[in-house]
Amino acid sequence: MNAKQIQLKSRPEGLPNANNFAEAEVALAAIKDGEFLVKNLWMSVDPYMRGRMIDRKSYIAPFEIGAVLEGGAIGEVIESNNSEFPVGSKVNSMHGWRSHYVTDGTEITRLPQTPISESHFLGVLGMPGMTAWTGLNRIAELKSGETLFVSAASGAVGSVAVQIGKLMGARVIASVGSDEKAEHIKSLGVDAVINYKTCGDLTAALAQAAPEGIDVYFENVGGEHLTAALNNMKDHGRIAVCGMIAQYNDTVPTPGPANLAQIIMKKLKIEGFIVFEHWAHYPEFAKQMGQWLAEGKVTAEQTVYEGLSNAPEAFIGLFEGKNRGKMIVKLT
Amino acid sequence: MNAKQIQLKSRPEGLPNANNFAEAEVALAAIKDGEFLVKNLWMSVDPYMRGRMIDRKSYIAPFEIGAVLEGGAIGEVIESNNSEFPVGSKVNSMHGWRSHYVTDGTEITRLPQTPISESHFLGVLGMPGMTAWTGLNRIAELKSGETLFVSAASGAVGSVAVQIGKLMGARVIASVGSDEKAEHIKSLGVDAVINYKTCGDLTAALAQAAPEGIDVYFENVGGEHLTAALNNMKDHGRIAVCGMIAQYNDTVPTPGPANLAQIIMKKLKIEGFIVFEHWAHYPEFAKQMGQWLAEGKVTAEQTVYEGLSNAPEAFIGLFEGKNRGKMIVKLT
Repeated sequence: MNAKQIQLKSRPEGLPNANNFAEAEVALAAIKDGEFLVKNLWMSVDPYMRGRMIDRKSYIAPFEIGAVLEGGAIGEVIESNNSEFPVGSKVNSMHGWRSHYVTDGTEITRLPQTPISESHFLGVLGMPGMTAWTGLNRIAELKSGETLFVSAASGAVGSVAVQIGKLMGARVIASVGSDEKAEHIKSLGVDAVINYKTCGDLTAALAQAAPEGIDVYFENVGGEHLTAALNNMKDHGRIAVCGMIAQYNDTVPTPGPANLAQIIMKKLKIEGFIVFEHWAHYPEFAKQMGQWLAEGKVTAEQTVYEGLSNAPEAFIGLFEGKNRGKMIVKLT
Repeated sequence: MNAKQIQLKSRPEGLPNANNFAEAEVALAAIKDGEFLVKNLWMSVDPYMRGRMIDRKSYIAPFEIGAVLEGGAIGEVIESNNSEFPVGSKVNSMHGWRSHYVTDGTEITRLPQTPISESHFLGVLGMPGMTAWTGLNRIAELKSGETLFVSAASGAVGSVAVQIGKLMGARVIASVGSDEKAEHIKSLGVDAVINYKTCGDLTAALAQAAPEGIDVYFENVGGEHLTAALNNMKDHGRIAVCGMIAQYNDTVPTPGPANLAQIIMKKLKIEGFIVFEHWAHYPEFAKQMGQWLAEGKVTAEQTVYEGLSNAPEAFIGLFEGKNRGKMIVKLT
């Protein structure tokens, strides 16, 4: 049988465009003993994938030109010679960007039975949700009563971070890129929302939203957001550095904040993290998040594009602010 | 009796110059009950004082125009109505930049008897030495076998940090601003020294000196040094941010490093600190450093200017790289 897949045709310079991607059809071998065939139902597009399109040493190997892309995906077993993955099983893998794949089960996990859509294992119950939880709990160690600032707050990670922040007892300030997103994020219980595109001076806007300063900044953006956060941190504030999406498409290096001396004056702690290194804590997270979802305390946000052919457009849309919550692609 | 003092005449813009300071003579009242008169023997000039010359909120109040400056000083009690500070006592205070002062003993400490010059309580046994020790032990938690990079390595803090680094079992790489300083710092046992003014690309020079990367960066400088360190840090590296002297005289903000995304990719931890918050650990430090000095394992470096009138020149010299080790002024 044949599988459709999206390959990296060329390395993007600046914002990726449709020409960086190619759709191809490849033949799949028949399944051998111990193998099974998966039909993907959902796939994830995430900002970190932009980094893998650059040919450089990083925490994860770069994508290769002419090879199929990779990323989180939820699929269903449709043919099986493996008793641990019978036909009908729903599975989570890193074999996204393709319609079908054959595997022996290496690094494939079966999804538990849950009342919510399995697509949420790519979002609030998956890597982005776990990232938000890890940054707040294990990196910044947010405490009840503290003030939390989250940038890119309507994104896949940010929209979970603001909700976890509230559940942990923090006062939560969010920044987003449109009034429509601001309205929506307010409906999630956030205390103050800044539209960074229209607020004027971000340092001043943040000072108004957090007159006593910020204890924890959940950093998704970099650039002016980091400058404004540094200017508004309290003494001994902590910054969990999850992403710097403002810079992912830079073609020339963008200088960093001019106010890094705040790190000394305020005795700040800044820590970068990669969620995969904390994966041993996934069960603890999943139990807590599953409970919050069941109790209706966390809203699982999704933006869904339809069809594998539209996956590049969904990915590009991440950098144009087109998603609210987790951006995913429905593949059937 | 009269005391000579140096006052802040005007706030410096950029590099301080002699016109920012004024010498004055003020009358001291006779000592009352419980008070004593101190004649200063030595005073300290330190880079952090530049920050206090700016009118802004910081961890310590700004100096006032027309008022005497402040800073560490070692003096001798020459008249006393306080039995805890008899005539002849040597005392440590923050009443530098003046020849004499009257006090009731508040925040004055008596020096212990030691075989070394009491001036070292302004350097290797005082705030700068304690800063180096705190940054390596309590902030970066340097471990034996790790690679340490220290910038401004021939300065008051840096020259102690490189020596403590060696005593803690690290491979130590230092950067300095002249070949003469490089030669000297090598004599302290440092493994590799970079003259940042002549090395060309600092990132490349550091990569050559530390081909396997840096575990701990002791940050005194900022700017290009921070860029180069970020490019050369190992995964999970730690940066103890003590100072950013390259920026203290900026008249317009200098942009920060363009490679802050390294914080995420390498999962770095960056922490600023102010030594005064760690002062409860001073006895632990002093015991250790006293032992190292007695055993000849640490060389106490000093650059001495003579006379109160030359204190401004000594201070300005800090930003021109004129000191090797601790810059102090001898007041007699």
